[in-house]
Amino acid sequence: MKGTVGELGEFGLIRELTSRLTSTPAVRIGPGDDAAVVAAPDRRVVASTDILLEGRHFRRDWSTAYDVGRKAAAQNLSDIAAMGAVPTSLLLGLVVPAELPVTWATELMDGIRDECQVAGASVVGGDVVRGELITLAITALGDLRGHEPVTRSGARPGDVVAYTGWLGWSAAGYAVLSRGFRSPRAFVEAHRRPEPPYPAGPAAAALGATAMCDVSDGLVADLGHIAEASKVRIDLRSGAVDVPSQMYDIGQAVGVDPLQWVLTGGEDHAIVATFPPETKLPARWKVIGEVLHPSALPQVTVDGAPWHSTGGWDHFGSPEGS
Amino acid sequence: MKGTVGELGEFGLIRELTSRLTSTPAVRIGPGDDAAVVAAPDRRVVASTDILLEGRHFRRDWSTAYDVGRKAAAQNLSDIAAMGAVPTSLLLGLVVPAELPVTWATELMDGIRDECQVAGASVVGGDVVRGELITLAITALGDLRGHEPVTRSGARPGDVVAYTGWLGWSAAGYAVLSRGFRSPRAFVEAHRRPEPPYPAGPAAAALGATAMCDVSDGLVADLGHIAEASKVRIDLRSGAVDVPSQMYDIGQAVGVDPLQWVLTGGEDHAIVATFPPETKLPARWKVIGEVLHPSALPQVTVDGAPWHSTGGWDHFGSPEGS
Repeated sequence: MKGTVGELGEFGLIRELTSRLTSTPAVRIGPGDDAAVVAAPDRRVVASTDILLEGRHFRRDWSTAYDVGRKAAAQNLSDIAAMGAVPTSLLLGLVVPAELPVTWATELMDGIRDECQVAGASVVGGDVVRGELITLAITALGDLRGHEPVTRSGARPGDVVAYTGWLGWSAAGYAVLSRGFRSPRAFVEAHRRPEPPYPAGPAAAALGATAMCDVSDGLVADLGHIAEASKVRIDLRSGAVDVPSQMYDIGQAVGVDPLQWVLTGGEDHAIVATFPPETKLPARWKVIGEVLHPSALPQVTVDGAPWHSTGGWDHFGSPEGS
Repeated sequence: MKGTVGELGEFGLIRELTSRLTSTPAVRIGPGDDAAVVAAPDRRVVASTDILLEGRHFRRDWSTAYDVGRKAAAQNLSDIAAMGAVPTSLLLGLVVPAELPVTWATELMDGIRDECQVAGASVVGGDVVRGELITLAITALGDLRGHEPVTRSGARPGDVVAYTGWLGWSAAGYAVLSRGFRSPRAFVEAHRRPEPPYPAGPAAAALGATAMCDVSDGLVADLGHIAEASKVRIDLRSGAVDVPSQMYDIGQAVGVDPLQWVLTGGEDHAIVATFPPETKLPARWKVIGEVLHPSALPQVTVDGAPWHSTGGWDHFGSPEGS
């Protein structure tokens, strides 16, 4: 497929994009009508929306269109899993400049489709408009399969804090890329294409998680959201969090304490949750702290003391936020 | 509330926006968590996404923020109704420049909230990011209440074609505004704030509508979508479509045949549907044509002949599309 999206036109581009999609039995009506229809067997639907802008959330010189698609979908599908739900479907609003190569748009779609398949979902609809700046608006839907949704507000003193997935890998990869390097590859790849532990969300709900969220703003910041909503304090044990030896090497090379990446890096979309202390957690969950009664200390402490860091992103302040 | 969204910051703006929202019993978990949870009693959920860009889909000098919100929500909620479903909820992805007054954003939110209330829905979540151009990404969800979704593909030869709502009013209002006038007020208002006939969608499903869509691209274009998907021809009787006398006056003033607005104007979000010929249609439905077997003629004809017009919008071609 050659040419630009301007040459192809709106309806041609939509045809080209939808022709690449696959479907699951949950999809009752897919793209092409006024709206999509998706199964919601639980009688409740879980829904989340994210917007991503070129230059702010992704860069065409750092990531392929395919990886942008994978990452954009992952970010949103991860929010569904973090409620304890199974992702079912995704809708894509897409702003594209007329001069964008059609191949960029189709590879983006391939990435979104493939990430949806990893999560068990499929793309069911969307909208395409012409604009100056590539913009992705993604909405994911999911089904709770009979479990109660796990919110941020249910953590209780005495609960343990555990996570599954990767922490700090994307931030380390970002540090590498922003200094003009392309390796170590595993971290660069983690920045370009996170791998959220989708099944862990519903599994945590089944295990009786009391609170949960995905790590998109950074571990300390996201646990702060749980502590705030649950009116508790959370203390992390820094020694309990996995910091791979290669991350120390990168930290030394670029002059950053790798614990900073692990505690404040977002975008890996690990899942962090609190569980009653007696919960038998499968090995995939790593216990890294505990829930305490509120005190004069900050709502999230590390080894009993305040963590001195900016902590997470603010979209109106950071150069390239989550 | 004074100041700009840049001064207020992301979390402050989100707080300010969500504080204005109201809720319905269908909302199980509203804004503030990883995702929202909404009732889907039918076990299927209807979902649609639209993107609107400043300068392309709305202008700050033509419309207030409140009206932009009303219109953006209406456009999306109307897609839900046009499947035969009752809108339940809406998610808003919002790109805002740092220098945007906070009041513009809050008034936009008020408009979205109020249009949701008209439709019986509420805002359950969203995302806010900073960017150069105001961009709205709206996803609406709805419930079918046991009815089968009415698609574009079920029209059969012999069916009647009927619509309810307004046709051409927004286009006439646009013609007035684009020539620098502010009246007649009813048409300008119709352009700024369409009034989709939301309850007519589920009612049509209950009446046995065979195909349905909302008129967003223009009557001829949207009936073309039905004809294409249903593999039929549709013939309209131009004399059957309501053309208010004031629309003739505007047409004379600006040199446009008002039938052009009625047949090709989008954005009013009337609902057009096909019904078996024996259907007893309530008075709100106006029969304007019939479904025929396909022939050598175009898929949509007016009074038996091709309609000579560009017909509807293409987002990559029009200066300000739907």
